[in-house]
Amino acid sequence: MEIKVVANVLAANDMIAEENRRILRAAGAYAINLVSSPGSGKTTLLERTVATLSTEIPLAVIEGDITTSLDAERIRRQGGRAVQINTAGDCHLEARQVREALAQLDLAGLRLLVIENVGNLVCPAGYDLGEDAKVVLVSVTEGDDKPLKYPHVFVESKALIINKLDLLPYCDCDLAALKSSALRINPKLEVFPVSCRSGEGLENWYGWLRDQVAQRRKPS
Amino acid sequence: MEIKVVANVLAANDMIAEENRRILRAAGAYAINLVSSPGSGKTTLLERTVATLSTEIPLAVIEGDITTSLDAERIRRQGGRAVQINTAGDCHLEARQVREALAQLDLAGLRLLVIENVGNLVCPAGYDLGEDAKVVLVSVTEGDDKPLKYPHVFVESKALIINKLDLLPYCDCDLAALKSSALRINPKLEVFPVSCRSGEGLENWYGWLRDQVAQRRKPS
Repeated sequence: MEIKVVANVLAANDMIAEENRRILRAAGAYAINLVSSPGSGKTTLLERTVATLSTEIPLAVIEGDITTSLDAERIRRQGGRAVQINTAGDCHLEARQVREALAQLDLAGLRLLVIENVGNLVCPAGYDLGEDAKVVLVSVTEGDDKPLKYPHVFVESKALIINKLDLLPYCDCDLAALKSSALRINPKLEVFPVSCRSGEGLENWYGWLRDQVAQRRKPS
Repeated sequence: MEIKVVANVLAANDMIAEENRRILRAAGAYAINLVSSPGSGKTTLLERTVATLSTEIPLAVIEGDITTSLDAERIRRQGGRAVQINTAGDCHLEARQVREALAQLDLAGLRLLVIENVGNLVCPAGYDLGEDAKVVLVSVTEGDDKPLKYPHVFVESKALIINKLDLLPYCDCDLAALKSSALRINPKLEVFPVSCRSGEGLENWYGWLRDQVAQRRKPS
């Protein structure tokens, strides 16, 4: 009984996710679902990304949090468009919540949508929101064993951002081991070591985003 | 339908949790359910705790992970008794898994049991495992807004460990703000700022553990 209900919930989610995907593709927008633990630096990455790219790429952010609108406010302070979703206790976003947020956004001319998921390295991995790519973010302060211990989200993602490089000299984190264990789990991962604090490595991330957006514009 | 099934699952969990609690109290053991995000330092805290306290307090650790037995191996290298639970995808431990782990432990003479939950600041907050106290751990590298954004686990916990104090000079984390927002959510929280790397502050944590264990020994 329990299993059947969960399967039904997932099937309903996938149906709405496909609808979201159709809406976003029709608008010409590339969509990212950004996943990490709490405090790995998702919002800081988006603050910098919005500040750097929003003049050249029309973009918007959907912020998923259990409670508060702190993150949407941070994005707006960088001049970005942001819609806040509060899950009221739920540990991940679902496609229906993203659909409600899409209804609040003017999609005309939108080229990039970033959905910042609830801080959780586990549950968001199982939910399609209608994105083109999941992007997983870890920070070097979390150690180098996260891909081994939480493999699902690394399997599901197209890119891995390794944040807080500025703290690497003070941490017991083997960056090469972190990268190679992630790539063993998913050899297709694009890997971007960055420091959202110093800016190191962010140009590579911006370049990848520009490429994804440019490819979406081409007729397929 | 979905809600009713979830309610049934939680009720079944609570029943088994009460049984675990009865078993542990009968044995005279104090039990902690340690919760944090991935990479905040739960296992490192337990490595140091086991190395320091295991000669004076008979203790054991139940390690909860989605996959791998890396954490149980780390505890055993410190001379601790450890049972590994793999949740095979699940984002939190449930009471039935702890009951199975208890069956693998010799409880005679046990005085302290620490259950290290799956790395997740959200879902474990809702599941009683039969512990005497939840203890939540955050690290200063995660920023100072975690109590505001993930309040449930702070409400449910008796103690808050703030780890990675050694990295505080390199982080944008306001330690006073972190403490005060946690205490606004739960004024009864015992707060232990520590560095599991340098050892700073750990004596206060060990002292609190000794007190809890000593109080359990007294006839109630």
